[in-house]
Amino acid sequence: MENLLEALPETLLMGPGPSSVHPSTLRAMAAPEIGHLDPRFLRIMDQTLDLLRQVFQTQNQLTLPLSGTGSAGMEAAVVNFVRPGDRVVVGLNGYFGQRLAEMARRQGAEVVGVETEWGRPVETADLRKALAGGPTRLVALVHAETSTGVLQPLEEAADAAHRAGAMLLADAVTSLGGVPVAVDARGVDIAYAGTQKCLSCPPGLAPLTCNDRARQAVEDRAGDPPSWYLDLKLVARYWGEERFYHHTAPINMIYALNQALRLVVEEGLEARFERHRQVARGLWAGLEAMELRLVVPEDQRTPSLTTVWIPEGIDDAAVRRRLLAVHGIEIGGALGPWKGRAWRIGTMGESARPQNVYRFLAALGECLGRFGHPVGVREALAAAREAMAALEG
Amino acid sequence: MENLLEALPETLLMGPGPSSVHPSTLRAMAAPEIGHLDPRFLRIMDQTLDLLRQVFQTQNQLTLPLSGTGSAGMEAAVVNFVRPGDRVVVGLNGYFGQRLAEMARRQGAEVVGVETEWGRPVETADLRKALAGGPTRLVALVHAETSTGVLQPLEEAADAAHRAGAMLLADAVTSLGGVPVAVDARGVDIAYAGTQKCLSCPPGLAPLTCNDRARQAVEDRAGDPPSWYLDLKLVARYWGEERFYHHTAPINMIYALNQALRLVVEEGLEARFERHRQVARGLWAGLEAMELRLVVPEDQRTPSLTTVWIPEGIDDAAVRRRLLAVHGIEIGGALGPWKGRAWRIGTMGESARPQNVYRFLAALGECLGRFGHPVGVREALAAAREAMAALEG
Repeated sequence: MENLLEALPETLLMGPGPSSVHPSTLRAMAAPEIGHLDPRFLRIMDQTLDLLRQVFQTQNQLTLPLSGTGSAGMEAAVVNFVRPGDRVVVGLNGYFGQRLAEMARRQGAEVVGVETEWGRPVETADLRKALAGGPTRLVALVHAETSTGVLQPLEEAADAAHRAGAMLLADAVTSLGGVPVAVDARGVDIAYAGTQKCLSCPPGLAPLTCNDRARQAVEDRAGDPPSWYLDLKLVARYWGEERFYHHTAPINMIYALNQALRLVVEEGLEARFERHRQVARGLWAGLEAMELRLVVPEDQRTPSLTTVWIPEGIDDAAVRRRLLAVHGIEIGGALGPWKGRAWRIGTMGESARPQNVYRFLAALGECLGRFGHPVGVREALAAAREAMAALEG
Repeated sequence: MENLLEALPETLLMGPGPSSVHPSTLRAMAAPEIGHLDPRFLRIMDQTLDLLRQVFQTQNQLTLPLSGTGSAGMEAAVVNFVRPGDRVVVGLNGYFGQRLAEMARRQGAEVVGVETEWGRPVETADLRKALAGGPTRLVALVHAETSTGVLQPLEEAADAAHRAGAMLLADAVTSLGGVPVAVDARGVDIAYAGTQKCLSCPPGLAPLTCNDRARQAVEDRAGDPPSWYLDLKLVARYWGEERFYHHTAPINMIYALNQALRLVVEEGLEARFERHRQVARGLWAGLEAMELRLVVPEDQRTPSLTTVWIPEGIDDAAVRRRLLAVHGIEIGGALGPWKGRAWRIGTMGESARPQNVYRFLAALGECLGRFGHPVGVREALAAAREAMAALEG
């Protein structure tokens, strides 16, 4: 049977995730297999938890990586905290807010959607209005919407939720490790993420953190959540001192996460956030110099993911196919109402490097020219360079 | 921060899982990261499904690896098929049968446990009696009980379930790839497994297969299962031709599974099953030559996992610690009622090699001698050699 793995090319991943992975993280995954109860593995688990807390910017004891992808993190955050009949306020301004609402619906919640135009953050005033409608268990917001590129401010939402007696749940899938999540400083009660975005670890784990209030809610819950696999009471006992057997941790994925997190902490969180900001500004300046229109107003953009309208007459799929096949660069198409109308360009983790911005802008310019829409590549590169000048230090 | 991964030693994994991983499978995991929608990844997904069907010995269209560990496979098998109020008959003869019952309970099922002594298979007559108690949705059995080392016959159970209008669900975590599961031939309706046992792939994925009847039950279900992440209707659309976006597949784990399955198919299923049988016989002969007592009668043992009583006066943990620290070999302690009283020795996948049996027997003999219980190592090696003679070909 054909070995398809041998033929895989190096690809620059500038889509909505996965991002490119550092070679040392790929190598970490191939470290010798040891048992999940081996004392050496237990030390790796503990170190990984320490690193996760640093990256979430939290002291939360209940901080751990769940054994599934980012969507498993979302499901864990919902099934552990949302009981049948609970009122849940969900920001609906993109694809992943909708998914949160769907998961809450499956738990039998009364879901109150705060409908907001795609490409704009949810307004605190609208959250307050929704919260005024009745006692609410949870406010759920997407911090960096992977479908739109919007960065959702969290402080005011946390304040509004807490005044109403609700907890704030934040989806940090496309922010953790690239954009400050600042769980403690912002008063986020529950947050989860994926590994394949700004952490530049392969997909397969879902870091999650809960503060003491949320942890207490898990402890105090009458009856078990319907999910045994994602039951935080059980998972926490496995990752905690007790090492109570629950499931077999995905050992090699934990190796990869451990190494990816060490790269984050070695770079320094502030330096890493600043790199993401600068690189995004370079990308934005380059795209605008090509006279392309960005979807989201600058002050509402997440640095990790940029959405740009596709020029009139340009075929979405044809450009992406050529970018991948000829230039070795992946970007993403859009979802839902924007399908075929916008591209999603990720600058996350290892992908968020100036050299990748230059390479991508040149490749995009080539593709647009090839399909009859010539743009100023020289101007784009110069604009990007100017915007990223601080990174040349 | 200390790099704990650099210091990891090569370890021979002869516990209840993970098993040792082939170097080519570890290398596969470090293949270049590409996008989960990249056409080259879609081909890898398709090939992986073909390989999974071969290993499950099935034509089932709905066959795929879930993005979680074996316990996620168990949860998917339960939440998709068990609705509130459904009657579910579960074989209770070990730890994992109890877990199945617990998961069914969380779905609001009426759980009818068929209590059976640990270390013995569930009797068909007992299943028939339980089935006679009322219309039953599902019979759930563990094919190879990782907690006891018992191999559960499935043909008669399938027949009994079908006559009663129920479906048969089999936990194949510790059998798939080492012991024939033969889903189609035996009439198993739903089966799931883990990757870190007889497939010798790292943990992190849960292969699952359903026949057309079970698939129809998923389609016909009124209302959604409480789990969105493990909803087979959605997951099947992602793995199917439609490629409907659900979650981001754990790309590098799929690489590893693809390679591990290719090794299985290249070896040939029959040859691989025979190797597992011979190696287990070698282990059993060696242990008995040391005058140790095996827990399970020979005709009820799974070749993939052997349970042996710990000799009087020997400290379970001290022996296992020495085996790991001095000899670089991991074996498992026992669970539940057997904790401290039995060891679990895995001969799964890459670990199921004659050289490992010799190495383990010698190491165990050394440890037992060290702790004041001398055994005949020479006799054990000779007995193992005789039992495994066929493998020297």
